[in-house]
Amino acid sequence: MSNIIRSLVLLTLFLLMGINFLTSAEHKYDTEWQIGYHNTEKEQPVQWYPSVIPGAVQLDIMKAENYKQPWWYADNVRQFDWMENVWFTYKTEFKRPVLRKDERLFFFSKGIDYRFKIMLNGETLCEQEGMFTYVDIDLTGHLKNMNDLCVVLYPVPKIAIKTNPDNAEEYRRNARESAKPAVSYGWDWHPRCVTRGIWDETYLTVRSATRLTDVALSYTLNDSLTMAHIDLNVEGVNLSGKSFRWIMKSPNGETVIDRQGVLSSDKSGLNTELASPELWYPNGYGDAKLYVSEFVLLNGGREIDRQNWRTGFRRIRLVMNAGTWEDPQPFPSTRSVAPSGIEVNNLRIFAKGSNWVHPDVFIGQITPERYREQLELAKNAHFNILRVWGGGIVNKEDFFNICDELGILVWQEFPLSCNLYTDKPEYVKVLEQEATSIVKRVKKHACLALWSGGNELFNYWSGMTDQSMALRMLNSVCYHLDPQTPFIYTSPFYGVGHGHYLFYDKEIDKEVFQWMTTAHRTAYAEFGVPSVSNVDVLRSFIPVNEVFPPRKGTAWETHHAFNVWRPESWLELETYKKYFGEPKSLEELVKNSQWMQNEGYKFIFEESRRQMPFCCMAINWCFQEPWPTAANNSLINYPNEPKPSYYEVKKALRPVLASIRIPKFEWYENEDFSCDLFLLNDSYAQIEPLKLVVTLQYDDKETEQFVWNCSGTGPFKNVQGPTVHFRMPKIKSGQFTIHIKAEGKPEYDSNYTFLYNPLIINNN
Amino acid sequence: MSNIIRSLVLLTLFLLMGINFLTSAEHKYDTEWQIGYHNTEKEQPVQWYPSVIPGAVQLDIMKAENYKQPWWYADNVRQFDWMENVWFTYKTEFKRPVLRKDERLFFFSKGIDYRFKIMLNGETLCEQEGMFTYVDIDLTGHLKNMNDLCVVLYPVPKIAIKTNPDNAEEYRRNARESAKPAVSYGWDWHPRCVTRGIWDETYLTVRSATRLTDVALSYTLNDSLTMAHIDLNVEGVNLSGKSFRWIMKSPNGETVIDRQGVLSSDKSGLNTELASPELWYPNGYGDAKLYVSEFVLLNGGREIDRQNWRTGFRRIRLVMNAGTWEDPQPFPSTRSVAPSGIEVNNLRIFAKGSNWVHPDVFIGQITPERYREQLELAKNAHFNILRVWGGGIVNKEDFFNICDELGILVWQEFPLSCNLYTDKPEYVKVLEQEATSIVKRVKKHACLALWSGGNELFNYWSGMTDQSMALRMLNSVCYHLDPQTPFIYTSPFYGVGHGHYLFYDKEIDKEVFQWMTTAHRTAYAEFGVPSVSNVDVLRSFIPVNEVFPPRKGTAWETHHAFNVWRPESWLELETYKKYFGEPKSLEELVKNSQWMQNEGYKFIFEESRRQMPFCCMAINWCFQEPWPTAANNSLINYPNEPKPSYYEVKKALRPVLASIRIPKFEWYENEDFSCDLFLLNDSYAQIEPLKLVVTLQYDDKETEQFVWNCSGTGPFKNVQGPTVHFRMPKIKSGQFTIHIKAEGKPEYDSNYTFLYNPLIINNN
Repeated sequence: MSNIIRSLVLLTLFLLMGINFLTSAEHKYDTEWQIGYHNTEKEQPVQWYPSVIPGAVQLDIMKAENYKQPWWYADNVRQFDWMENVWFTYKTEFKRPVLRKDERLFFFSKGIDYRFKIMLNGETLCEQEGMFTYVDIDLTGHLKNMNDLCVVLYPVPKIAIKTNPDNAEEYRRNARESAKPAVSYGWDWHPRCVTRGIWDETYLTVRSATRLTDVALSYTLNDSLTMAHIDLNVEGVNLSGKSFRWIMKSPNGETVIDRQGVLSSDKSGLNTELASPELWYPNGYGDAKLYVSEFVLLNGGREIDRQNWRTGFRRIRLVMNAGTWEDPQPFPSTRSVAPSGIEVNNLRIFAKGSNWVHPDVFIGQITPERYREQLELAKNAHFNILRVWGGGIVNKEDFFNICDELGILVWQEFPLSCNLYTDKPEYVKVLEQEATSIVKRVKKHACLALWSGGNELFNYWSGMTDQSMALRMLNSVCYHLDPQTPFIYTSPFYGVGHGHYLFYDKEIDKEVFQWMTTAHRTAYAEFGVPSVSNVDVLRSFIPVNEVFPPRKGTAWETHHAFNVWRPESWLELETYKKYFGEPKSLEELVKNSQWMQNEGYKFIFEESRRQMPFCCMAINWCFQEPWPTAANNSLINYPNEPKPSYYEVKKALRPVLASIRIPKFEWYENEDFSCDLFLLNDSYAQIEPLKLVVTLQYDDKETEQFVWNCSGTGPFKNVQGPTVHFRMPKIKSGQFTIHIKAEGKPEYDSNYTFLYNPLIINNN
Repeated sequence: MSNIIRSLVLLTLFLLMGINFLTSAEHKYDTEWQIGYHNTEKEQPVQWYPSVIPGAVQLDIMKAENYKQPWWYADNVRQFDWMENVWFTYKTEFKRPVLRKDERLFFFSKGIDYRFKIMLNGETLCEQEGMFTYVDIDLTGHLKNMNDLCVVLYPVPKIAIKTNPDNAEEYRRNARESAKPAVSYGWDWHPRCVTRGIWDETYLTVRSATRLTDVALSYTLNDSLTMAHIDLNVEGVNLSGKSFRWIMKSPNGETVIDRQGVLSSDKSGLNTELASPELWYPNGYGDAKLYVSEFVLLNGGREIDRQNWRTGFRRIRLVMNAGTWEDPQPFPSTRSVAPSGIEVNNLRIFAKGSNWVHPDVFIGQITPERYREQLELAKNAHFNILRVWGGGIVNKEDFFNICDELGILVWQEFPLSCNLYTDKPEYVKVLEQEATSIVKRVKKHACLALWSGGNELFNYWSGMTDQSMALRMLNSVCYHLDPQTPFIYTSPFYGVGHGHYLFYDKEIDKEVFQWMTTAHRTAYAEFGVPSVSNVDVLRSFIPVNEVFPPRKGTAWETHHAFNVWRPESWLELETYKKYFGEPKSLEELVKNSQWMQNEGYKFIFEESRRQMPFCCMAINWCFQEPWPTAANNSLINYPNEPKPSYYEVKKALRPVLASIRIPKFEWYENEDFSCDLFLLNDSYAQIEPLKLVVTLQYDDKETEQFVWNCSGTGPFKNVQGPTVHFRMPKIKSGQFTIHIKAEGKPEYDSNYTFLYNPLIINNN
């Protein structure tokens, strides 16, 4: 297949996938890559194996050396441990391509993890620390007839720590002086598996000596959002005297900008205005409208290069929620909480969604399809935001492109998490390089809502403060490169809450129904309710003889059922027994454990919405998982299987719904069952008066109806109804459901299922 | 007097005053300045008057047009109101000086307030907004035989507001889009009097065409503080090929650096190391040791230019105080408080001092002598810090030089206070220019402890947040130009408290003794207890017929006794009457009002010290005042007269002292008087065991002795003793004193005087 045909095919594919961002006229070369390992920098690999890129060193060696598979089965992941401390070299050999006088050959990579040098024919052309800074090297002047291009990976960066081998949380301290995301060093839902290697698109490519290197559109909107002031920054090589044509089309295909001219230097700024731009809105608040641009570079009428991209016009600000200025504080008074309310296009939104971790431990394996499947699940669950947590990676471009399309806001953290990151200049310099690359890339996306320095840095387990050099540098980089996007040092920031992560906490003797009702935060940026994974997922990685009952020292423990975060996490068998007694089968365990997750998550999401407008954000921990866990707070099992809680959260996040506040999970015969009624509305629709009918359903029976003649409610406003009382009947099945029927509006109906305990208590 | 002789005299004066910072070889020209006003930019003044510079437009016009004086008497200050809206022009005429081929004539000013243009012979050479950026213009190429140099001042910057003329606090909103300090627009202790004009050193000067423009020393200390890595940045004109000699002498005069060489360009960096530097310490923790440098520029052995400066080696950090990480917070947990503990040279200190406002409404009148008098008062009261509040100016160089010498740390705020400063690019640009000038100047001083974006910006009355463009820009400027110095966005920041400002607050029915005991902040950066001013001060500005009793609508009100902050502030006559009944004379009013201030301030300072090490800072509002107030929270009356509270605060700030915690101010016969005993120590001295004897003294009698055999205490550590009980006797004088005598250590003795109420209450 010729290069031109290949390029066309790729372009067509990209257009079909809607991922037509930043395509550029270039001719990619196919080469085969090999990989090998060695103990010192100067050594050569003893053996070369085939390599799949993008991928990971672990995956290549696993295949070549016949490791036990799948890598996530039982404790197979431990097979990779030795790789942390060795060097890896990727190699490709290629003949000097036939280049026209005006052509040059480049080595280009969107991501090499983590510290490396690039050598051509034994000559070092580049050394870099950092996996988020694209590598782009002109090889032309260094070519021989036969060429040997190597990417040499340093061992994993690790600060020596006194590691307690029983405490996975301690492992992360290894990552304290590097810009490598900390998660792969081990977390309470991620095995210790420090991935490395070429993890994003990487190729040799022939480019014209005259070419575009970057075409970046930025804009500001006026206060009334009726005018966009657009700046287009065009950079390239040999551009002087070349002509260009820039066409921008509106979301419905109408040409709104058609500009031609001649460039006078390698760096030009064009500016223009666009009146009445159609605005980009997050999911649930409007359409995610995108304009499409193409910028064509011409020489005497002949196209030399082009770039295509999309633009969503919106203004995002972080503002104070209602009541947060006035929150009472006596003298001596400290500052008010920091703003956490997201405003898009002058509209307050209720931000709802999940913390996004990795879809895969091996980030090189994450495909555009996987991103799309998961992001569509998010959109379908009424999510409008994802917090991309600082323990993980800054995702590939596909992720952001799809979020742009689906209207999912991205809260993007820099790669700092739960560590005391040093003030040492060497570290701050690497982080600055990485942050600069990240900001320049991601700021072009409409979905970008918020920059954050990292995760939980201002809590005792990290020990950082506002005076950190790294964080002040990040603030400065964002201020200079992307001032329009809000910036926070870390989450939680003042006023915002993280936690709790349990259905029931014996230390405080409180259920989620109790602690969440008294919580008073402006935003809930992390909270979790754990459950056991789906049955088929459990059976896929737990050896048959270990499946039931769950025990320490088995695949249950290596997959986070025990001894992570707290000794009982995340299986929480004691909590299970408190409500259900000893589990009798795997199926029963899964069913009841997931029931608690369902009602727990639903309650937190709905309770945070009840606290609107003081609170305007609920983001649970976490969405998916990078390998199959035995128990976890996630809504989706690896690789992409929703747990029942996903569907329950989806119900809790409907723009309008009937909801209850309930004091506890477990009920007894004859007790006075009570709950408060609400109609929640975080949309901008006016809700007309309606009749809500509440019943307690059990054993195919139901109680007398309780009727609330609800007055309806205004835009972005909840309404509280009366308190419902039922005398608890005797129930055979051990459970009952509160059903709220919204007459004429079945889409507002809600169900909540609770536990019936057959013990009789004296309740007057 | 020849220029050389004048320069020598000036140099000698500077050396005598210890203000030998940044002297440079130049020959200043004396010229006479005149001033006039006009209604539009293009008009010329109708009349020219003599002008004193530095000074203020108000002072020149007052003299020339025979205004009522002194300006601070009664409501004389209102005579200046009309000046806000007119233009002023300063003018000087001079003959072209005889310049050698290698000489040039400059116009130089350290401060012109606020927006202006500089014109020579009708030609505009410079336009500037901002009073903190030095003006330095080479006039040489524009000179005629007779020259006419004008400084044209724009009217006062004012954002239109709906001003409630009865609410002085609203006036400050005028200042919301400018970098002009807000205080002169009116505050609760500063009259509305928007000063303007040439406010710092300003002159014509002949300089060599070959010259130094800036010699800036920066350094970092290693962790153990045993090595200073020094960078010297040398900038100038025509420096290439010129030789230099740089000599640095230690605090005791020993030469520690003697370096010679040849400069290769107009911008050079020299670096060196200094082993075992003698460190600079703040007052109370060691000596404020300063090294002295001279840098001489030579051409063939002949001195062309020189700069002298001083350097104090220290490392200052903002760190978490003991217990502040662990301060309990349940899930969902927010961040920990921000660090507010000042650490100097690896030593935690208890920061104690005052908020520094202006010594004079007319900042152009502030002399080095006034700075020195007031700063020596501060030092003598055991202050180690001054918060230079963002409503006021960044002081002249003398201020910082004297603080360097006296060991007084400076918390320097940028000129933002109690306003919603805009995100508009025009404003942010001016502020960036001003901040850059301020940081480059002030960072050279050993006394600089902290940069702060401004005052009370994150409270509802300002309405700014962490997302402010201005504040993010300030962080970025400080990070780039002075990363070693801590930076905060504003005060109070999270954990730090401002307030209360009353001895007794009827709204909460609490005295200072009650609210301060339950306060739980990591630092108290503002708190006040008001009092009436000294008798002679009151008589100096209140017309005889208004002196007593104090009434609204008189000079009492124009001087802040009524209707500022709260309706009763700052005279607080209702509180006075609650304790003392109707005042019978001015003398009685002053005595009792100042008594409350004495005990109130002493209690807050000592209570904050009792809260050490969770709390490590107490800075009262405020030190001095810019004109004579009738009532105020200040310790010092205008122009420089300590109130009794100054001496009481001085006692409360002794490094080691006996102290009591007392529940209230007013006591009755037969009551059980009780107070808790403490020995406070914020020094690093070990305090040996000692005997403390407590008595209640009244009517020349005293109760039985209460003895505490105190075990002494360790460095930077308080010790709590027993609770003292006395049965309240019958007291004729209406007051009594708790006296604590420290046997063998009279310097630890303390006295506290309280009110006896002759009413008999039933107290079983």
